[in-house]
Amino acid sequence: MKLNYLMPTKIVLGENCIFTNRALLGDLGKKALMVTGRNSAKQNGSGADAVKALETNGQSYYLYDKVMSNPTVDCAFDAAALAQREHCDFVLVIGGGSPMDAGKAAAAIAVSPVEKSAFFSTTFTKALPIAAVPTTAGTGSEVTPYAILTNDGAQTKTSIASPAIFPRYAFLDPAYMKDMGSATTINTALDALSHSIEGMLTIRASVFTDPMAKAGITAFAECVPALKAGTPDLAVREKLLWASTLGGMVISNTGTTAVHAMGYRLTYFKNIDHGRANGLLLGKFLRFVAEKEKAIGGNRIGEILGAMGLENLDEFEAIMDALLGQREKISNEELENYAEASINAKNITNTGIRPNKAELLSILKGSVDLRNGVFGL
Amino acid sequence: MKLNYLMPTKIVLGENCIFTNRALLGDLGKKALMVTGRNSAKQNGSGADAVKALETNGQSYYLYDKVMSNPTVDCAFDAAALAQREHCDFVLVIGGGSPMDAGKAAAAIAVSPVEKSAFFSTTFTKALPIAAVPTTAGTGSEVTPYAILTNDGAQTKTSIASPAIFPRYAFLDPAYMKDMGSATTINTALDALSHSIEGMLTIRASVFTDPMAKAGITAFAECVPALKAGTPDLAVREKLLWASTLGGMVISNTGTTAVHAMGYRLTYFKNIDHGRANGLLLGKFLRFVAEKEKAIGGNRIGEILGAMGLENLDEFEAIMDALLGQREKISNEELENYAEASINAKNITNTGIRPNKAELLSILKGSVDLRNGVFGL
Repeated sequence: MKLNYLMPTKIVLGENCIFTNRALLGDLGKKALMVTGRNSAKQNGSGADAVKALETNGQSYYLYDKVMSNPTVDCAFDAAALAQREHCDFVLVIGGGSPMDAGKAAAAIAVSPVEKSAFFSTTFTKALPIAAVPTTAGTGSEVTPYAILTNDGAQTKTSIASPAIFPRYAFLDPAYMKDMGSATTINTALDALSHSIEGMLTIRASVFTDPMAKAGITAFAECVPALKAGTPDLAVREKLLWASTLGGMVISNTGTTAVHAMGYRLTYFKNIDHGRANGLLLGKFLRFVAEKEKAIGGNRIGEILGAMGLENLDEFEAIMDALLGQREKISNEELENYAEASINAKNITNTGIRPNKAELLSILKGSVDLRNGVFGL
Repeated sequence: MKLNYLMPTKIVLGENCIFTNRALLGDLGKKALMVTGRNSAKQNGSGADAVKALETNGQSYYLYDKVMSNPTVDCAFDAAALAQREHCDFVLVIGGGSPMDAGKAAAAIAVSPVEKSAFFSTTFTKALPIAAVPTTAGTGSEVTPYAILTNDGAQTKTSIASPAIFPRYAFLDPAYMKDMGSATTINTALDALSHSIEGMLTIRASVFTDPMAKAGITAFAECVPALKAGTPDLAVREKLLWASTLGGMVISNTGTTAVHAMGYRLTYFKNIDHGRANGLLLGKFLRFVAEKEKAIGGNRIGEILGAMGLENLDEFEAIMDALLGQREKISNEELENYAEASINAKNITNTGIRPNKAELLSILKGSVDLRNGVFGL
C-alpha cells in the first residue's frame, strides 16, 4: 500500500473559543482581511466575537462582506485585491462554505501573480495565513486544502487544491449555529455525511481516513432524530460540527467521488444547495456500489451502514427521504447532459467503484423526481 | 466540551517511500544532521536509502550515529552542537524511539540557547525542521511533539513537548522492520497498543482521537496471531506500523496515563524496555479502570475490548501473558518506591480515572512477579 496523509490545521473547539484562543490569531500578523457573507456573521455573533478577539489583541482588520452563495472567481479576486491594497497579513474567513471558499482562494491569489482566466489551472504554492470560523456544520472547509468556485467556463463548480490554503487555525463554536433554520441545518449536515461516506468510497481511502469517516457517519446518525424533529439543541449542534470537521479531515486526504461530480451540476444548473445535491444522490449511488460489491466483492456499504447503526439501504433511503422531502423535478434530457458532462470530472476517476456514463445517468434519474422518465412520479 | 487537535506532520507510507518522496527532503535545506543509533539504520537499509535520497537531491549530511537506548540530555546536546558546528539546515532522524527522541530534542536545542540543567523546564518554541524515518513500529514519535530523555535528577524519563518538534515529514517504510527480532517486535507493538489504549483513558480523549485509537487497537489485535507465532510478514509489519503511527497521532493530542508514569520507573530503575514496561502494566490498569467504571459509570474498557474483538479482560490478560512471557521479579519495597515517585507525575493528573498511591502500588504489584508479596509467584 502507498498513501499520504496531511491535515496540519490546529483545531480548537468550544463555546467562545475564538476569544479564549485569541492568542493564536495574534500570531498571524497586524492586520486581517475578514471575509464573510452578507449577513450571517453579523446575525450569529461570530463577526462580533472575531472583532473582539482582534481588538483585544491590538490587531486591525478590513471587512469584505460581499461573498455570495457559490462564489465566483471575480469575488475571490476582489477580496484578494483588497488584501493587497489594505496590506493585510492574514485572512480570517467566517461563514459557511461560500465565504470559506472565497476567502481561502483570495489568500492564495493575494500573494500569487495569476490571471483570472488561468485561475483553475494554477498550482498555488503559497498563500496568506488563514484562520477559519465555520458558521455552518457541513463543508468541513476549515480543515481542507480546497477552495471551490463557480466555473462558468466548464459550467460546474471546480475546486483548487493546495496545502498552502489549509487554514492555520479552525475555531469551532457550535453556538453560532443555534438559530440556524431547519433547511440549512439539514442541507449542511447532508454535506458532512456525504464527505465521510464518499471518502470511504474513493481510491484513496486508508487506515488513516476510514476511522474518522466512520466517526463522522456515526455522529450524523446520532443526530438524525433531532434533524427530523427540527429541534437540534446545542449538544446536537456540537455533534454536527464534529461530523462536519471529521468529514473535512477525510476529504482533505481522499477527495470526493461521483456524487460530488454530479452534485456540482445540480448546483450549477438548478441552483440546488450543495449539501442537498449530494444528499439527493447518495442513496442511489450507494445502491450502485452495493450491487457492484455483490459481483466483485467488498463490504464498504456494509461498513457505512454499520457506522450508522442501520441494517440495509432501505433504512438509509428512508432517512434521506425524510430529510430531503419532495425532490426536484428535472427532465430526462437535462439529466443526460449532466451525466455526459460529469463523466470526465476528476472526482470520477477518484471513485473506487467507478460508474460509467449510463450508470451515472441511472443514478441521476433515480435521485430526482423526473418530469419525463421512468423513475419518480 | 472544549478540545484542541493538532497533528501537522505529513505522512507518506509505502515501500521505498523515502526515495520516491525525496523531493520533500529537498525542501528542507542543503545539509542534514542525520541522527541514528549505532547499528540499526546501517543494518535495515534505512540509512542507505536516506543517503541515496539526499545525494540524488544534491544535499549533504553529517552523521551522528551515537544515540544509545534511553538517550540522555548529554546525547541530545552533543547532537545539537554538531548541527551548529556543521551548519545543518534540518535534522533527519532514523531509528526507533531513542534516535527520534534524541534527534528531535537536538533540533530544538540547536536553535535555542538553553543550559543543560534547564532542559526539562524549558519551553521550546522553535526547532530545525525534522524528517523522521521510524525503523520500529511502536513509539509513534514520527508524528508527535514529544522528545523523551532520561532525567537523572528525577530518576525517571521525562518528556518535553513542543509543536516545534512535530516532524515535518514521516516516512513509513515497513521493509525496515522485516528482519526485526521477535522480542523487539512484541515490545514495540505493546508500546503502540498502550498509546492508543491510554489515549482513550486520558481526560483529553475526544471525538478526534478516539476513532484513531480504536483503529490502532484493532490493527494491533489483528496482528496478535503473527506476534504470538513470531512470524510477521510484510503485510503484518505494515499493519503494526499503522498501529504505531495511529497511536502517535492519538497521544500527540491526549498525552498518556498512569501506565506511562509507572512504566518510566520500571525502565529507569530496572532497564525494562519501554514498550514491555507499558505492556506489563496494562492488564491490571484496565482492571482498575473497569472496577471504577462499575461504580461511577462509563464503558471505556468495553469500547477498548470491542475494538480488539474481545469479550472480557481475562482474554486481554491472556494475550498480554502470551506476549510478555515470564515477568520480571521486583521487590515490594522497590514497588512502593515507584508508586510513591509516580503519584506526582503529570501523566497521573492526565488520567481519566486517576489511581491514588495505594492503587498505583496495587497495579504495580499485580503487574510483576513479586519476590516478596501477595501477587505473582
